[in-house]
Amino acid sequence: MATDFFADIPTIKYEGPDSDNELAFRFYDKDRVVLGKRMEDHLRFALCFWHTFCWPGSDVFGGGTFNRPWHAGANDSAAAAMKREAAFDFFTKMDVPYYCFHDVDVMADAHDVTSHRRHLAEAVDHLEQLQGSSGRKLLWGTANLFSHPRFAAGAATSPDPEVYAFAAMQVRDVLEATHRLGGENYVLWGGREGYETLLNTDLKREMDNFGRFLTLVVEHKHKIGFKGTILIEPKPHEPTKHQYDFDTATVYGFLKRFGLENEVAVNIEANHATLSGHTFEHELAMASALGIFGSIDANRGDHQNGWDTDQFPNSVEELTLAMLEVIRAGGFTTGGFNFDAKVRRQSVDAVDLFYGHIGGIDTVAKGLLNAAAIIEDGRIDGIKAKRYAGWTDGLGGEIANLDLAGIADLAVERDLKPAHKSGQQERLENLINRFV
Amino acid sequence: MATDFFADIPTIKYEGPDSDNELAFRFYDKDRVVLGKRMEDHLRFALCFWHTFCWPGSDVFGGGTFNRPWHAGANDSAAAAMKREAAFDFFTKMDVPYYCFHDVDVMADAHDVTSHRRHLAEAVDHLEQLQGSSGRKLLWGTANLFSHPRFAAGAATSPDPEVYAFAAMQVRDVLEATHRLGGENYVLWGGREGYETLLNTDLKREMDNFGRFLTLVVEHKHKIGFKGTILIEPKPHEPTKHQYDFDTATVYGFLKRFGLENEVAVNIEANHATLSGHTFEHELAMASALGIFGSIDANRGDHQNGWDTDQFPNSVEELTLAMLEVIRAGGFTTGGFNFDAKVRRQSVDAVDLFYGHIGGIDTVAKGLLNAAAIIEDGRIDGIKAKRYAGWTDGLGGEIANLDLAGIADLAVERDLKPAHKSGQQERLENLINRFV
Amino acid sequence: MATDFFADIPTIKYEGPDSDNELAFRFYDKDRVVLGKRMEDHLRFALCFWHTFCWPGSDVFGGGTFNRPWHAGANDSAAAAMKREAAFDFFTKMDVPYYCFHDVDVMADAHDVTSHRRHLAEAVDHLEQLQGSSGRKLLWGTANLFSHPRFAAGAATSPDPEVYAFAAMQVRDVLEATHRLGGENYVLWGGREGYETLLNTDLKREMDNFGRFLTLVVEHKHKIGFKGTILIEPKPHEPTKHQYDFDTATVYGFLKRFGLENEVAVNIEANHATLSGHTFEHELAMASALGIFGSIDANRGDHQNGWDTDQFPNSVEELTLAMLEVIRAGGFTTGGFNFDAKVRRQSVDAVDLFYGHIGGIDTVAKGLLNAAAIIEDGRIDGIKAKRYAGWTDGLGGEIANLDLAGIADLAVERDLKPAHKSGQQERLENLINRFV
Amino acid sequence: MATDFFADIPTIKYEGPDSDNELAFRFYDKDRVVLGKRMEDHLRFALCFWHTFCWPGSDVFGGGTFNRPWHAGANDSAAAAMKREAAFDFFTKMDVPYYCFHDVDVMADAHDVTSHRRHLAEAVDHLEQLQGSSGRKLLWGTANLFSHPRFAAGAATSPDPEVYAFAAMQVRDVLEATHRLGGENYVLWGGREGYETLLNTDLKREMDNFGRFLTLVVEHKHKIGFKGTILIEPKPHEPTKHQYDFDTATVYGFLKRFGLENEVAVNIEANHATLSGHTFEHELAMASALGIFGSIDANRGDHQNGWDTDQFPNSVEELTLAMLEVIRAGGFTTGGFNFDAKVRRQSVDAVDLFYGHIGGIDTVAKGLLNAAAIIEDGRIDGIKAKRYAGWTDGLGGEIANLDLAGIADLAVERDLKPAHKSGQQERLENLINRFV
Repeated sequence: MATDFFADIPTIKYEGPDSDNELAFRFYDKDRVVLGKRMEDHLRFALCFWHTFCWPGSDVFGGGTFNRPWHAGANDSAAAAMKREAAFDFFTKMDVPYYCFHDVDVMADAHDVTSHRRHLAEAVDHLEQLQGSSGRKLLWGTANLFSHPRFAAGAATSPDPEVYAFAAMQVRDVLEATHRLGGENYVLWGGREGYETLLNTDLKREMDNFGRFLTLVVEHKHKIGFKGTILIEPKPHEPTKHQYDFDTATVYGFLKRFGLENEVAVNIEANHATLSGHTFEHELAMASALGIFGSIDANRGDHQNGWDTDQFPNSVEELTLAMLEVIRAGGFTTGGFNFDAKVRRQSVDAVDLFYGHIGGIDTVAKGLLNAAAIIEDGRIDGIKAKRYAGWTDGLGGEIANLDLAGIADLAVERDLKPAHKSGQQERLENLINRFV
Repeated sequence: MATDFFADIPTIKYEGPDSDNELAFRFYDKDRVVLGKRMEDHLRFALCFWHTFCWPGSDVFGGGTFNRPWHAGANDSAAAAMKREAAFDFFTKMDVPYYCFHDVDVMADAHDVTSHRRHLAEAVDHLEQLQGSSGRKLLWGTANLFSHPRFAAGAATSPDPEVYAFAAMQVRDVLEATHRLGGENYVLWGGREGYETLLNTDLKREMDNFGRFLTLVVEHKHKIGFKGTILIEPKPHEPTKHQYDFDTATVYGFLKRFGLENEVAVNIEANHATLSGHTFEHELAMASALGIFGSIDANRGDHQNGWDTDQFPNSVEELTLAMLEVIRAGGFTTGGFNFDAKVRRQSVDAVDLFYGHIGGIDTVAKGLLNAAAIIEDGRIDGIKAKRYAGWTDGLGGEIANLDLAGIADLAVERDLKPAHKSGQQERLENLINRFV
Repeated sequence: MATDFFADIPTIKYEGPDSDNELAFRFYDKDRVVLGKRMEDHLRFALCFWHTFCWPGSDVFGGGTFNRPWHAGANDSAAAAMKREAAFDFFTKMDVPYYCFHDVDVMADAHDVTSHRRHLAEAVDHLEQLQGSSGRKLLWGTANLFSHPRFAAGAATSPDPEVYAFAAMQVRDVLEATHRLGGENYVLWGGREGYETLLNTDLKREMDNFGRFLTLVVEHKHKIGFKGTILIEPKPHEPTKHQYDFDTATVYGFLKRFGLENEVAVNIEANHATLSGHTFEHELAMASALGIFGSIDANRGDHQNGWDTDQFPNSVEELTLAMLEVIRAGGFTTGGFNFDAKVRRQSVDAVDLFYGHIGGIDTVAKGLLNAAAIIEDGRIDGIKAKRYAGWTDGLGGEIANLDLAGIADLAVERDLKPAHKSGQQERLENLINRFV
Repeated sequence: MATDFFADIPTIKYEGPDSDNELAFRFYDKDRVVLGKRMEDHLRFALCFWHTFCWPGSDVFGGGTFNRPWHAGANDSAAAAMKREAAFDFFTKMDVPYYCFHDVDVMADAHDVTSHRRHLAEAVDHLEQLQGSSGRKLLWGTANLFSHPRFAAGAATSPDPEVYAFAAMQVRDVLEATHRLGGENYVLWGGREGYETLLNTDLKREMDNFGRFLTLVVEHKHKIGFKGTILIEPKPHEPTKHQYDFDTATVYGFLKRFGLENEVAVNIEANHATLSGHTFEHELAMASALGIFGSIDANRGDHQNGWDTDQFPNSVEELTLAMLEVIRAGGFTTGGFNFDAKVRRQSVDAVDLFYGHIGGIDTVAKGLLNAAAIIEDGRIDGIKAKRYAGWTDGLGGEIANLDLAGIADLAVERDLKPAHKSGQQERLENLINRFV
């Protein structure tokens, strides 16, 4: 019985900052009200199937280290069921409200369209039942369009229309399953939607096909009455040399090109942000400024390693800055914090899964508390507002209705001699550190 | 007399691949016809003022090494005139058709609006006369909105509207000067249009101000009848931590947001491409696919160093791939190859300026010859066309008018079993190497 | 009178974590005893001349923004004296015990050997007097062998022996000045000791010359009776493409090659560590393991920017890990924490210098307090000790005296089946976060 | 029968630059004499087992795409034999003299020490027979100490002495097998000899254990009379966060620390060089300067991707610079060019393996031809020699026997005013381009 896997571990509870219990939350107190909202409602934590229940602990240079009971033999219906039960046991013991999955994460292996659909349906029935018995909810579903060899050259951007059609089948089915399971979002991560070499790539055709695919997904969402949000997850590369959804600004341009900027938002992952040459908080602020902030994949990368390490968040400093942007963006609507994070390959014990997620959750929760305190304090926002005051109170108003020549003439007539004023970066950094 | 500076060096001529003369072109034969067009008309080379005539050979850790005659004292009207004459002497000896400049490159130092405009006007008069006597033309002009301390926090994105107005004055004047001098483009590189820290930055306001500024520039262009192209030059960072014009895809989204995608194109710099996590040819292909390819700043970066090294192009392999994209994009209309490249700080002799530019020009020219041969050969294009044939001849046509459910149903009904076909990357790379 | 520059700012004092005074220390309480030693004696803070008093706020793309009074005209004897007085006023108001300088930082500009030596001597006399009146001490002195154009191709590694001789003159003089001023270390940062291109570089000769130069410096140190430590400061590149003192491990190999590993230690800079692909704490741990830990240049880099940003430390998380390694290395002997950090180019006010240094000092001080708490707690050290227990208590002892075949035979005979045990990384990260 | 796998493909022959045959060498003419030596003897090409015959085409995000016949079922003795036969068929058709292997590449899967040794012995018998029948030779053997879960925390640096002993068994056996098979080198790549986090790592103990292990290997080599070279292969990270053999300079320091610098050399991999922040040619030049140049793993990385892509070399420009350093180092003694390169995951056809290797071999061969021409031309060496002439002809001799004070006094007495001379980098780059 799969649920025995976590038998030794109790449900994780809030015990406060001074608790010595390593299997308790020190900051995540789900019912505590922060800025007028319960922490659980602010953060909307989700746990993921793939890293935690599917990945065997392998990497490019070595095999799986984990030896989970459901990995002992083939991934047939019984093994998949055992995995789903273990997962819901974990979700329940962690006591967070949501989970997320790819189709192939939750189902038995399939060898053709028919078995794919049958195994998925079987899994969805079980998930519906497990949701009911556990009280857990679905933050988002997604289709895995990157692991099977058929997707080696892309899915919606494949040179082969048959692959595109296969992908359409998978997405249709998971989108409908997500709808049925009450999922609040549907995610597209285009892991293979990119290229390995321009020499064999028709960039324009691939991007056009990708745009049409996304348009069809949005239309289908409306057709079936799904009220959740369609999310694109940016990543610059890996596994491809270049991925079309490079970063938030790139996705925005893509959406604008196909008229989808009001239909689709972004699911921002911290490690993808840093791989693309940005900070996590930059991507959040950019999504907010462009009106496409949707959801978050919580994890962290390694600044010295150039691949997706998907480690658990453990920097309260980083999460404080990130939560500031989340709050300024108005917080989540349908989105939440999904842990797209995995324990290290060396962390082979069941309890390591708890350490990883407890640490990650507390890091985010402490970030929220700090960010709320910064906003309530008001000094930082005040300094920023003063810096831009000239645009609301001063010359900014005067020039708002002038054309280029009008503004230029004004500069000449008034003999403007603007002097740079201090940006006070060090002062602001010190103020932030008062709250971390 | 400034023109003495290059007195020992003859005009550079084409002498063919086997010439032993290090001061001759081996591949750039301006009148040779390639793919139906003269090389000079394909490549439209330009030389720049700033790196070659203004930069003294300083870096962050040390002072100027060059000791050019025009740097001996203050940059007054006489020194600026000497510099302009030396520059045109160089442009003429290099025998390329175009040059480029920032306002402050060509003029005496100014201390206020009035002296700025007077010194610029003086310079423009002289440039007009030098263009006439030398037969050289202006590829593009631009305003330096990043060197003066007033621009420390940005120009169009400054928190201070006075700075914005000052920038408007400079841009208006240089845009008009460019028009008067017959320039074929006007460039905006937003060196300080970005941020150092999100803590003091109102991202949305700054991007909105930047969008309005660009809109005003486009309107002014039409008002004065300037027929050239307005170009934005992407760069991810440096000097700022983050620059708003991060890369071509980002600029495209920015233009779409302000409805300027048919008014403004990009000036792509090789070193900026690699700093943003892309290859040079990627940025060209992306600009072409998005319909905003404009012009090129030719140089190269160092793959092991994380800043803008602005070295001369010397990789025929890289330029062959780049020229393939330029040709596929239809070649330049108003754009060209400007050398935004500088000799190393250690290359202090006048003749080093010739070595740098001759090497760069020959590298680009050989890239053109190679790319033309690849296109005429046709094998690579043939392999690519065959790879996507399913979209024109096969299933692609069938699914073009189906919705998501229709395509998914088709995949089910036909029991599609798409198998991955070889992408033949190694074969294609070998074919390319036959032409390099 | 230079000292007026900081007239409005009081001496900085410890006021505790809850103080609202932005011009006070919240954690640096110099007389507080931590792990049996006063904080001041643990941390041995030093302030530097170059970034804080010499740099005008320029960068590669723009001129100086700071307008300090001593930068108003030429750097003659009067200006240099004004700068020295302002610096000591600042050192005193910051109330840290040490300062550091390069020869050219403190002296009037020189045009030849004679004026160089005269101006340096003048400066040293004044420094001696200022040390006496202020009670400040010299942590280390160094010679600037990278800013003057003569050093464009290196100093000890120059192709020109005259440059080598000039460098020897400078180093001899500053080493003796450091001795006279009671300096506790002498630092060599080889900013230009590297190469731009292998095409013109005799790598072996340059490294041999560099090794001999260092040997001569060590010999001279003993000859004059200087008891301080000679320190090399690793950096991977910038300004050069490649710098010979790439990182700590590279410096160790260099010292071993010339038999200097017991004579010379390293001065580790946080930003140099990250530029070389390591964490700050890695470089500290490596130096400790190799027995060459000397001193620290405190600052931080930007993980998204590929150059030396030299920002003030502001991550307590990073400094906690760094201080753990410092304590484990036994702490400083002659070394200390020198702030090789600069306020941002936009931070133009005198008070910004205080904000930057106060923030940096408090970040390091809090890191010390956290690290001490972690060590006193003992859990992390206990987990690590248990992980390696097999080497002291188990099989490790048995195999210590066997040769390869002996160990291999033992593995065969005992049919060893070692299974991986959890590395508990997430648990350890959670434990660390309890103290940050 | 495995050898049918390549049945359609003929033996690859030299046909010259103008051949249109994509399955022929255009530059690698094994008997052509270059600089007095046959190309085959210069380049000593080897093909590897792992990427070409063991890897199934999987990556972190997806399963195997290749479907080789020997991957159809379990890796038992029959499958391993089929793989070995296919491999030798390939080695023979490629007509290169050498191959390389890890123990687990060539043998059936083992479940304990006994089966490991039995399966290895079985494989070695077969390899010996295949060498005899094919005329192929072994460049080097190595033990895989990174793929099995037991090595998750390292092999020689494992916290568990049992793992260390298991590794000793493997290395002893493969070293002896290499000796028996006439291998010319034995390689140690420490894929897991590093750390994931300093929090659970005893850096000094691990490096000490690593040093002792290497010492034991060297002793065993001498004991069994193996005359080949022991090689360490540097890599900075991946799979570990930090690998102890970071780069060539680091390995040198490690060897010096354990007195092994005359016993062990380096096997330099191009992609590892670039991951560590160096160029390929830098690592070669450094190894040569330090006297530890051994062998080469030929491949290339992707400058925009931060992991080991192990692509085939295809830049003649890069290989020309690399071959210059190889020739200057005196060429290979026991080493050679092993292709540690893999076809892309999308390149699934048998013929793609030929395209990849043919392209790589021709790239290296053309690099050799170019480098030989550069050396015979002599201009570049002449410019470099002249640059350093002062060290042999001028002041360099005078100061060779002076101490620091003596040299400093000489600088003062002669009033030295060294001026920087041009480094002529652009000229040298142009000269190189004449030969590429």
